[in-house]
Amino acid sequence: MHSVPLRLKKDQERRLLAGHAWVYSNEVDTAATPLADLEPGQAVEIIAQRGRWLGHGYANPHSLICARLVSRRRSQPIGAALLVQRVRAALALREQLFEAPFYRLVHGEGDGLPGLVVDRYGDLLAVQITTAGMDRLQPLVLAALEQVLRPTHIVLRNDNPMREVEGLAQGIHWVLGDDPGAITLTEGELRFAVAPAGGQKTGWFFDQADNRRAQHRFGPARRVLDVCCYLGAWGLGAAADGAESVAFVDSADSALAGVTANAERNELAARIDTLHGDAFEVLRALRDDGARFDRVILDPPAFIKRRKDEREGTRAYERLNRLGLGLLAPGGLLITSSCSFHLSREAFLRTVQSAARRTEHELQLLLAGAQGPDHPVHPAIPETAYLKTFFLRALPGARANDAD
Amino acid sequence: MHSVPLRLKKDQERRLLAGHAWVYSNEVDTAATPLADLEPGQAVEIIAQRGRWLGHGYANPHSLICARLVSRRRSQPIGAALLVQRVRAALALREQLFEAPFYRLVHGEGDGLPGLVVDRYGDLLAVQITTAGMDRLQPLVLAALEQVLRPTHIVLRNDNPMREVEGLAQGIHWVLGDDPGAITLTEGELRFAVAPAGGQKTGWFFDQADNRRAQHRFGPARRVLDVCCYLGAWGLGAAADGAESVAFVDSADSALAGVTANAERNELAARIDTLHGDAFEVLRALRDDGARFDRVILDPPAFIKRRKDEREGTRAYERLNRLGLGLLAPGGLLITSSCSFHLSREAFLRTVQSAARRTEHELQLLLAGAQGPDHPVHPAIPETAYLKTFFLRALPGARANDAD
Repeated sequence: MHSVPLRLKKDQERRLLAGHAWVYSNEVDTAATPLADLEPGQAVEIIAQRGRWLGHGYANPHSLICARLVSRRRSQPIGAALLVQRVRAALALREQLFEAPFYRLVHGEGDGLPGLVVDRYGDLLAVQITTAGMDRLQPLVLAALEQVLRPTHIVLRNDNPMREVEGLAQGIHWVLGDDPGAITLTEGELRFAVAPAGGQKTGWFFDQADNRRAQHRFGPARRVLDVCCYLGAWGLGAAADGAESVAFVDSADSALAGVTANAERNELAARIDTLHGDAFEVLRALRDDGARFDRVILDPPAFIKRRKDEREGTRAYERLNRLGLGLLAPGGLLITSSCSFHLSREAFLRTVQSAARRTEHELQLLLAGAQGPDHPVHPAIPETAYLKTFFLRALPGARANDAD
Repeated sequence: MHSVPLRLKKDQERRLLAGHAWVYSNEVDTAATPLADLEPGQAVEIIAQRGRWLGHGYANPHSLICARLVSRRRSQPIGAALLVQRVRAALALREQLFEAPFYRLVHGEGDGLPGLVVDRYGDLLAVQITTAGMDRLQPLVLAALEQVLRPTHIVLRNDNPMREVEGLAQGIHWVLGDDPGAITLTEGELRFAVAPAGGQKTGWFFDQADNRRAQHRFGPARRVLDVCCYLGAWGLGAAADGAESVAFVDSADSALAGVTANAERNELAARIDTLHGDAFEVLRALRDDGARFDRVILDPPAFIKRRKDEREGTRAYERLNRLGLGLLAPGGLLITSSCSFHLSREAFLRTVQSAARRTEHELQLLLAGAQGPDHPVHPAIPETAYLKTFFLRALPGARANDAD
């Protein structure tokens, strides 16, 4: 790609030198680099005010994040060779980590490929492009994936709202092979039907796979509640471990139909129950019925999508966790998640602890999980760390109304 | 235990109501409760200024933490019944988590037993008491452990500097059975000789067991460096996974002798090398020799023991990580720990990232581990979360001097 210089104002190179990869529009020296001269997706060479060369990147004058740095090697511009090299590096890591080819293959900035997400289901790849710069590179991206992985199917899941910010169209397109509908995915000993073109996000929440596996360490729970269950991966894992009963809650009928089908597929249907409705309403109804569970799993969608939702969203997490804790038996395990990157790990823990005091539980934090290692965090870009999953035990005997 | 009221000043109950368990001396209403009237270890009932009953606890007028809350149930005072109940609750959790009886059985505030740590090596218990309140309860603590676990050996590892703050004497005493010298501990497929009365801390670092296990997910590394290796658990784990060579660094001859013995015990001696000396000096010498490793493990003792050491200690972490990263091959894995609770997770990550920029590495944070679930964190007491272990990969091909 032909690249043009993008010059920064005085002292605006600090964040990039510390390892971050984003340039905000107010950091650009617009006298030297008029933003109006840049096309969306334009390749740039980012240069500090005093002339220090910082890196190859791409720009979008219409976005608050005006440019993203992709390579700090002058001899390594953005192009086919770099994309192939980064995809190979990403694949090498996953091949160390996984026995079966089901994982997130490319995780944006975390893999040195900002604006690109690729989930792998065997020979099928679900690709999501979220920036104008990566969108311009789409033919080279697809070529790199074909060269390195030789897939039989590729679907573009370009139905992400982040694309609108970048001025990109929404859509789902098969660019290699025909839509197979659902495919079968293996997680642990269980098999799940997943639709890469039709499900939430790119079809499956690979980011929680490590945390779902960690659940098994705590052995079988008798009565389990799986809230915002999607296709049932958490609760069916608990059922396979020996739970007597698992209740699944979701507001989407299609998700609960998926749970039922997946339960049958794994011969666990006799021990499951599905509860359709808003999570808050279903949990209140269970409370009013006096229901109790030995394990409560809360894995809701992000309640804080934008910074301005922080206050209201934090309250929603507090309410949901209070309802969940109200249903937890003494000695029971609460597994509670937030995928809102605007809610820090510490703030989420404070929120859960606040819910614990209001329900008079004494909690023990046993594990603090995050997105799995196929979703690498860029250590200089806090925004790339978004998932928090806490495993908390209600210390038995500590509540006034616990049995002695 | 006979208990006396401990009255707080106005509005000083907030932290306790939020779930914390500590009362600082400046929060006590000394007109109502003269500190001079309290004996070290005295049982107290903590009461807010307006008379609200908050909990049973114990006091130490000579400590900055003047009292610790132990029970929020009025009907559950500190005594034999409570100790037995809490030890049983602690054991029930570990029996869920572990197949073999080698773990931390009691982790202070995290198990509702402030001032008490118990590590379990089968039928041998290593007990550490760090507060005057728990010290007073020592006979009841030992009785509770004997009743619940029926151990054959108990050693009191009361050689912790925290005891001095509480006005308690230092010492190591066998209170049940005779010193067996070293015992054999199993971790994964490896066997280690450990001396519960003679080693560092209580003999073994159970807190890193989960992180050491996570190492196996990354498969075999060719050349491994294990810095501040103690008895070799990290590096021997890597050797068992198939490393061609593992170099162990420690400043204690006794530790390196332990590594050699443990390597022989596991038939790994042919692939190990021990380097005696200060970690910084040994790493500089390796750098000057042009050495390179595919995995570098940094697990130093706490560089920040008191808050006033924060600046100097943070610099020491930065230096150590810079030296370690300087030895890392492209695509290699850095496993780096800090057990300083004065260094937050975020500050430690910033420190490592700073070291990465100075060595021109692009790092991917793959896993952010903590102390294992047998070391529960009290969610309202940040001081109980102390261990950070980051797994970071050096993105191959990203450095100017990497091969393409």
